[in-house]
Amino acid sequence: MHWTLARRTSNQASSVIREALKLAERPGIISFAGGLPSPETFPVDAFSQACERVLRGHGRAALQYGSSEGLAALREHVAGMLPWPVDPAQVLITTGSQQGLDLVAKVLVDPGSRVLVETPTYLGALQAFAPMEPELQGVPSDDDGVDPRALRRAAGEGRAARLLYLLPNFQNPTGRTMSEARRVELVELAGELELPLVEDNPYGELWFEQPPPAPLSARSPDGCIYLGTFSKVLSPGLRLGYLVAPRPLLGPLLQAKLAADLHTATFNQYLAAEVLRDGFLERHVPGIRALYRSQRDAMLAALEREMAGLGVHWNRPLGGMFLWLRLPAGMDAAELLPLAVARGVAFVPGGPFHAQAADPRTLRLSYVTASAEQIAQGIARLADAVRDKLQRRAA
Amino acid sequence: MHWTLARRTSNQASSVIREALKLAERPGIISFAGGLPSPETFPVDAFSQACERVLRGHGRAALQYGSSEGLAALREHVAGMLPWPVDPAQVLITTGSQQGLDLVAKVLVDPGSRVLVETPTYLGALQAFAPMEPELQGVPSDDDGVDPRALRRAAGEGRAARLLYLLPNFQNPTGRTMSEARRVELVELAGELELPLVEDNPYGELWFEQPPPAPLSARSPDGCIYLGTFSKVLSPGLRLGYLVAPRPLLGPLLQAKLAADLHTATFNQYLAAEVLRDGFLERHVPGIRALYRSQRDAMLAALEREMAGLGVHWNRPLGGMFLWLRLPAGMDAAELLPLAVARGVAFVPGGPFHAQAADPRTLRLSYVTASAEQIAQGIARLADAVRDKLQRRAA
Repeated sequence: MHWTLARRTSNQASSVIREALKLAERPGIISFAGGLPSPETFPVDAFSQACERVLRGHGRAALQYGSSEGLAALREHVAGMLPWPVDPAQVLITTGSQQGLDLVAKVLVDPGSRVLVETPTYLGALQAFAPMEPELQGVPSDDDGVDPRALRRAAGEGRAARLLYLLPNFQNPTGRTMSEARRVELVELAGELELPLVEDNPYGELWFEQPPPAPLSARSPDGCIYLGTFSKVLSPGLRLGYLVAPRPLLGPLLQAKLAADLHTATFNQYLAAEVLRDGFLERHVPGIRALYRSQRDAMLAALEREMAGLGVHWNRPLGGMFLWLRLPAGMDAAELLPLAVARGVAFVPGGPFHAQAADPRTLRLSYVTASAEQIAQGIARLADAVRDKLQRRAA
Repeated sequence: MHWTLARRTSNQASSVIREALKLAERPGIISFAGGLPSPETFPVDAFSQACERVLRGHGRAALQYGSSEGLAALREHVAGMLPWPVDPAQVLITTGSQQGLDLVAKVLVDPGSRVLVETPTYLGALQAFAPMEPELQGVPSDDDGVDPRALRRAAGEGRAARLLYLLPNFQNPTGRTMSEARRVELVELAGELELPLVEDNPYGELWFEQPPPAPLSARSPDGCIYLGTFSKVLSPGLRLGYLVAPRPLLGPLLQAKLAADLHTATFNQYLAAEVLRDGFLERHVPGIRALYRSQRDAMLAALEREMAGLGVHWNRPLGGMFLWLRLPAGMDAAELLPLAVARGVAFVPGGPFHAQAADPRTLRLSYVTASAEQIAQGIARLADAVRDKLQRRAA
């Protein structure tokens, strides 16, 4: 039988990350590659009690088909926890925020549509947008986020862009946060350019010193789609996310959701609504912040200790899960990876996070999955690999 | 802010069913409209025990991210329960079988690709395919399924069709089953035409007198994608489905799955794997069959009793959840619906189940959600509505 594949299957994004994650699964490897929340933070007991209550109290409803919009109680909870006035009718529960990206692309992106993203940006967004066959364009970005002058240039080139996709808080992959001043400037510029914003905020609650500045969506609710998730504050294994959209988009997004998977798992929505009652997150999330902060500190300390004199640079994330590292001039992170894995440590090279040509010296480190002790050991191994590479080059 | 919508949002399929379901939610309405399994059949206690065991034994793994392919234990279970040799590596766990349709369309359908479907066919498939902008073509079908001569004609017209989508068992919406002879003929013809088949089998286990003939996929594993689900035998609220695909399609389908929602909820997969152990379905499904059979019989008896002399025709499904009814000549099911709702009964008109022009006299009745008593009362109300319509026409 001959199967003719759709054209979009040929421009499916890189599988470099999947390969890196496979490497990271080998026994003995300390992995900074994945973006897995620390399982210590999963509220197993709270879920256990919620399962019992939900199945005893609402078993038949919780195991039945549900509405495509999502469970009313959960939509109300989401609307209530966001820092700007949101009507629950504008909240759509999604099967993880990854699905939010799929739905947004289906509703806003035609083949050949221009879609702007940060440089670098979340690989999963590039993968979610790719099936709709956009022309993806990375907008030059600095430590504060997207560069407004570069954005003005990019928006002025050719056809109007359909959207600009942004992760303002503790970005994946860089860990950087968009400054207050940049947010003000960007929202004003987007309004002037009539450029829709898609704001992805999976990590915003995971701040270490102070909460990040207010979301872009809070400043321009009619100009933004907001994506959120319970994966980082409750459990990724439930696949529960949400999006908040301006009213003109609700009908098309709902139809896309219905077509994609009818609705998000009813049982999981009941569980989350049950667990979230009575301010659960306010008690639970500070523990995650403290844990991740201590692990970030362990990684920063290990980098200071182990990378001294190697010409390696990195940033100091104010929250979230990732740190961004730049290797010495002339070194390629993708080439370093096999050497690192041979020494028992894994990371993800920066290349796949770019819509266009990447800086090959960059790589992403996650500090949330490994323990502080493993972090110290893993960074020492990574420094060994860098030294080895420098020596081979010198030889 | 001006949002430019993607072109595909303009050809999103009808929302007639959503409207019908909304009508059906009014208090006092007996609904034959939905496709909701009877909640009596949900194994609430088994899930309750499974929740406890899974969270106690594998809490952290079950709440963590999982692989895009799905949980190994569940893929093995699926492979083992199918009636032909399936390698677990060919099984992809999906977020309900609705997502299977989304993934298949992404991998096989380009804008303008020809896609063949039965007449009528599952509305959810039309909705899932629509975002990929196919040219949908209904192939004339009879009581045994797709008409082979019509299929040969349709396949010969214009560009090669990318796939033929079929529900051979207790079809939604008609309840009809493809005969053994038709299956043999169709598989041979598909091979000759090099026409890929997408076989959707949500209802196959819900047989009343005897199991349906073997799936098309069992006869031509390399020429078929097979879609299955746990929604009808365990719980739809978990959103657990699966697909089995020929090896050349596994890579593209996996990439599409990753981009769509990363993976299906880990916790739900653990729960299903736990519940399914030790031949659970063999003990559980016979009860569902018996219940639905008695409800089908109640509906057939009520139709015989109430519709006598009205010129209404219907079929006798051998399994599944739906019965297909044809109104007297000149009557339109969409026009009958408000009259029926005014009398306290709801159904879905046949129109939306068609890729092209529909027979306006047809409608779908579900016999699984309402009890036998409600079925008797609901069919009496429906007969009243038909009589009223006949009288108005005569007047």
